[in-house]
Amino acid sequence: MPQSLECLRVLDLSRVLAGPYCAMVLADLGADVIKVELPGTGDDARAYGPFIKGESAYYMSINRNKRGITLNLKHPEGRALFLRLARWADVVIENYRPGTMDRLGLGYADLEKENPRLIYAAVSGFGATGPYRHRPAYDIIAQGMGGLMSITGHPGGPPTRVGASVGDITAGLYTAVGILAAVVERERSGRGQFIDVSMMDCQVSILENAISRYLATGQVPRPLGNHHPSITPFSTFKTADGYIIIAAGNNEVFGRLCGVLGVPGLATDPRFSTNPARTQNRDALAAALETAMAGAGTDHWLTALEAGGVPAAPVQTVDKVIGDPQVAARDMVAEVDHPVAGHTKIPGVPVKMSRTQGRVRRPAPTLGQHNEEILTQVLGLSKAQVDELRSKGAL
Amino acid sequence: MPQSLECLRVLDLSRVLAGPYCAMVLADLGADVIKVELPGTGDDARAYGPFIKGESAYYMSINRNKRGITLNLKHPEGRALFLRLARWADVVIENYRPGTMDRLGLGYADLEKENPRLIYAAVSGFGATGPYRHRPAYDIIAQGMGGLMSITGHPGGPPTRVGASVGDITAGLYTAVGILAAVVERERSGRGQFIDVSMMDCQVSILENAISRYLATGQVPRPLGNHHPSITPFSTFKTADGYIIIAAGNNEVFGRLCGVLGVPGLATDPRFSTNPARTQNRDALAAALETAMAGAGTDHWLTALEAGGVPAAPVQTVDKVIGDPQVAARDMVAEVDHPVAGHTKIPGVPVKMSRTQGRVRRPAPTLGQHNEEILTQVLGLSKAQVDELRSKGAL
Repeated sequence: MPQSLECLRVLDLSRVLAGPYCAMVLADLGADVIKVELPGTGDDARAYGPFIKGESAYYMSINRNKRGITLNLKHPEGRALFLRLARWADVVIENYRPGTMDRLGLGYADLEKENPRLIYAAVSGFGATGPYRHRPAYDIIAQGMGGLMSITGHPGGPPTRVGASVGDITAGLYTAVGILAAVVERERSGRGQFIDVSMMDCQVSILENAISRYLATGQVPRPLGNHHPSITPFSTFKTADGYIIIAAGNNEVFGRLCGVLGVPGLATDPRFSTNPARTQNRDALAAALETAMAGAGTDHWLTALEAGGVPAAPVQTVDKVIGDPQVAARDMVAEVDHPVAGHTKIPGVPVKMSRTQGRVRRPAPTLGQHNEEILTQVLGLSKAQVDELRSKGAL
Repeated sequence: MPQSLECLRVLDLSRVLAGPYCAMVLADLGADVIKVELPGTGDDARAYGPFIKGESAYYMSINRNKRGITLNLKHPEGRALFLRLARWADVVIENYRPGTMDRLGLGYADLEKENPRLIYAAVSGFGATGPYRHRPAYDIIAQGMGGLMSITGHPGGPPTRVGASVGDITAGLYTAVGILAAVVERERSGRGQFIDVSMMDCQVSILENAISRYLATGQVPRPLGNHHPSITPFSTFKTADGYIIIAAGNNEVFGRLCGVLGVPGLATDPRFSTNPARTQNRDALAAALETAMAGAGTDHWLTALEAGGVPAAPVQTVDKVIGDPQVAARDMVAEVDHPVAGHTKIPGVPVKMSRTQGRVRRPAPTLGQHNEEILTQVLGLSKAQVDELRSKGAL
């Protein structure tokens, strides 16, 4: 089956997460992505554990579907090779601090001269403009400065970082959107452009509801725990052996919930008979529901609530997610043979397309694994020339 | 300035968040998006508070840059108008439960016959295939079943929902990526296709690090609070008046941190002199750092740490985010004049492009605001025909 982006050539100079995740999304859809790494150490994420036979599981999961080359960009011949690759490429992705690539003579202004069709995407903590443009940023800094930590967690508790790196990942996804929009635009104009994505800007975008609430009312949003601000019950509740999510959006579903739990009187109790009343008496209702569920575990209540037509779900730990039949049916755990780590499992491709489905077709590269393949096939060098470049320290 | 996607025509039939967010991302980059709503009530989100002069702030923030039409898809003439619009469109986006559009005779199989170039994107809780395909899903269910809640929060505490609706939003972003990849592919093949995105699949994708840790080690990831799993100190810490984020990734930065805090002895204390030792003695170190910072507030320490070369940041509440000079410099708060709500502020466009920058160019539509404009200009109807359709209940 052909893949959507198989004509798209991408150079991924990025490290750790935001940039590599963006390049992975394009690679998963079929793009020919060459990961360009520093000789010797490579992407910093190669040093992040846990390791499988010495290879970073973290690195392998977000660099699959890419080929790998090492280039010393401070070596004149390494730099020259990069410029030649930039003439071949459609897209360059980097997540250095703003100005770093310019100082190497490899910024957008330099590369545009080589290839006016090039789309150059830079992901950084705060973007290439503004007073914070030179500050370093990590995921926790983006989540903290962008407001997400201030609305995550339980009332009265400390601010809470989201357990996944959504500061990096949302920036990676937005950068992928920007790159593809620029590819679409280039079909008309024939010209590339510079794309500048800031992790903090993306955090502002994903706050949506909290921002609109604040701008409309002037009230500063606070952590709500797991409750919905205006629908009750719509949260997690304790059972005999864990937690269950119940989403009862109206009186009819609430009535069914009370029936299944064996407490039909709650549905007519004036404290709980309307959604506004339930929301006002949220803590009392949660206590009553948890008392009603205390005699059995989550699995029991899930089965009973599903049969009774009440939306409910478990809070799954990662092992349960990986073993979930829906995840299996959707091919969301892919298997791949890595030359060092062997047979490994990594997440699958979440965009499902009827004609040009992406797939996990190759493992992440070992450091410099495709140096010879890329330099001979893409740039037409001889094997002897590759050996000479290596001995000079350009690779 | 031209915009990237101004040649892309999109019909947005979606409601609430995942689909509307996807269509907003395309509209923000210049696509001509027509939001198709049910006569009378429209998108469910129109009923979500808070309201500005009766208009939902929530709806307005994620439906800007779209024009609005009402169509009764169960009325034969409403359905016929929709089929005509589907011949005009490049993209249809919907987030009904799988099968709903097919039952209306408006599923991908029906629309493809009208327009083989059409790209049809469906976003749902669990996708169009697999054992859970018919289950309802809300953001909290996707976050819970997809594993994110199990790794968010504080050790020993309850599972925690992320305060922003990342279950919906990541699905919306992935759907935008899929649509644009299909547009790029269509340049070669001339054909559209069906795109099927599941909120749960997208949650699996964003777990990245937690999944790779689990698959490599078999250990089930648990909430880590705000700590980094392997770098210390890299978390939030209490000050005299709130919290501060400190990210000291190596011994050199840690030494500078201890100097700024006036506790240089910590840097040579054997419990804290290496990163592995600091990680092992994380709680003792946090206590020592918080004691050292107890005499002054967050602003004081931010200034001192910035001067001392230690990455640090505040945990900003939403009001502080909106007032942040970086957010202003990046145009991340846009202003727009709504015909009913008046002058309102909404989040800006986070993808910054050098030649074809997107922008907030129109407010969200009132219900059916562009019925006459769209039916006369796009479909060539007369004003009298529009009036007749309205009186028949087709609009």
